[in-house]
Amino acid sequence: MTRPTEQDAEAALAEGSREVDTLRVRSGQAAPAPDRVAREEPLEIQVGGESIAVVMRTPGHDLELVAGFLRTEGILGVDETPSSIHHASTGDQGENLVRVTLRDDTSFDPERLRRNLFASSSCGVCGKPSREAALQTAPPLDDPSRYEPAFFIGLPERLRADQTVFGVTGGLHAAALLAPDGRVLVVREDVGRHNAVDKVVGWASRELDAPLTGHVILVSGRVSFEIAQKALAARVPAVAAVSAPSSLAIELARDAGLLVVAFLRGKDFNAYGATERLHR
Amino acid sequence: MTRPTEQDAEAALAEGSREVDTLRVRSGQAAPAPDRVAREEPLEIQVGGESIAVVMRTPGHDLELVAGFLRTEGILGVDETPSSIHHASTGDQGENLVRVTLRDDTSFDPERLRRNLFASSSCGVCGKPSREAALQTAPPLDDPSRYEPAFFIGLPERLRADQTVFGVTGGLHAAALLAPDGRVLVVREDVGRHNAVDKVVGWASRELDAPLTGHVILVSGRVSFEIAQKALAARVPAVAAVSAPSSLAIELARDAGLLVVAFLRGKDFNAYGATERLHR
Repeated sequence: MTRPTEQDAEAALAEGSREVDTLRVRSGQAAPAPDRVAREEPLEIQVGGESIAVVMRTPGHDLELVAGFLRTEGILGVDETPSSIHHASTGDQGENLVRVTLRDDTSFDPERLRRNLFASSSCGVCGKPSREAALQTAPPLDDPSRYEPAFFIGLPERLRADQTVFGVTGGLHAAALLAPDGRVLVVREDVGRHNAVDKVVGWASRELDAPLTGHVILVSGRVSFEIAQKALAARVPAVAAVSAPSSLAIELARDAGLLVVAFLRGKDFNAYGATERLHR
Repeated sequence: MTRPTEQDAEAALAEGSREVDTLRVRSGQAAPAPDRVAREEPLEIQVGGESIAVVMRTPGHDLELVAGFLRTEGILGVDETPSSIHHASTGDQGENLVRVTLRDDTSFDPERLRRNLFASSSCGVCGKPSREAALQTAPPLDDPSRYEPAFFIGLPERLRADQTVFGVTGGLHAAALLAPDGRVLVVREDVGRHNAVDKVVGWASRELDAPLTGHVILVSGRVSFEIAQKALAARVPAVAAVSAPSSLAIELARDAGLLVVAFLRGKDFNAYGATERLHR
């Protein structure tokens, strides 16, 4: 993986967090003090000049976020790439507006997307989220990869070492992509759990050749339906998490051939969904 | 507060979680074992016969969830109540479909809601979320309440004692409503952070007389923009959290007169936003 330099870490900290005034209460006594919190700002995504979504995100790696969003929301097929993705260059909104141009042969229906956004939703506010809908957008995985239990041991500790902003603000979620040999390829963080995954998927779509055979997505939080759906759309056969999975995530994982590893602590974890992917 | 009985706790556990098969890996060794995970299922909300949203939620307290959703999403004004809220009585979807009838004098525009849902979003996928939009839906608080630092000390521990399903699955967020004298009035939990808050707000809208002067909403996670916006819409002047606030949540809190208490640990916390509400 590309190890961040000290300058990179400082730049990420400046971009991903903001200094605010706070009243600090210690042992019941309040005193003013400066503090750093995770930045949260809306990013508008325009496709072909039309606004299709605004995502609440932590600024930084915006183009990866958009590239991943296009993929995990099913706007781009597995083999499709956008023609261009760039920040708006002018206006107050420059850093909070990203414009996407699709290739001529990409078919894109904004109305279908609108329904999909409700449906897939990081949010809880959804259209008709279901295993059926998720599997229609992205069919079950035919990647035959299997994993050794040892692959997953110690992963959260490695992830934490790379969460530069998290260490300071305590306010960010992280996601990482791991190669089949266990190397951490990329770590991204965001106030939104789903954004962190989209940033990682977007990075992969720009830096790696598809398909992501035998790769693993690691998340710092829990595995909801939506996280499982995003891994499936990115064609990654395993998701690992520090926290718990939900019932619907497990059901989708079982149908889609996705291995879900959860409660990763030290040498212990639980496996759900396509547990046949785990060597025993 | 109404303390849950042992039977209540068992019923909540059965409703809020589901038994699944897992491979349990301990010290690197895998063995099959049963496990309980938090349930996550879509709940469709119909208003006047029209589907307005589907919320991914943990079943339980669905009517409170919908009542709170109507309020925090601005569908009902502060003084308005719905005519009726009930589960669909027939069909497979019965427990996952709630029907709302509004009073004749409630003006409701489904198109505006659709825009709002994008805008407010638990999800990260939003229309034009902004302090301006949030303050238009719910104006700044004129509640003059102030709080002693001691009010907040020990709150997370009290909340944890009431999280019945969390203790078993590790997969749920919780929210609570506190009276001005510090009593915990109600605790609700859900896979969705925002749903837990909506359930609490919905409970209050059905059980208490508005306004919620001097009350506090406590959440088990972090304070994002959306959590601050929901407290504002519910007219509760303070939000307390175990984890971190985001920059946009603090900015909204400052504009709206909302006190944000975060990083609650033992006798320590940080206060943001309308810190003048904290006695010193």
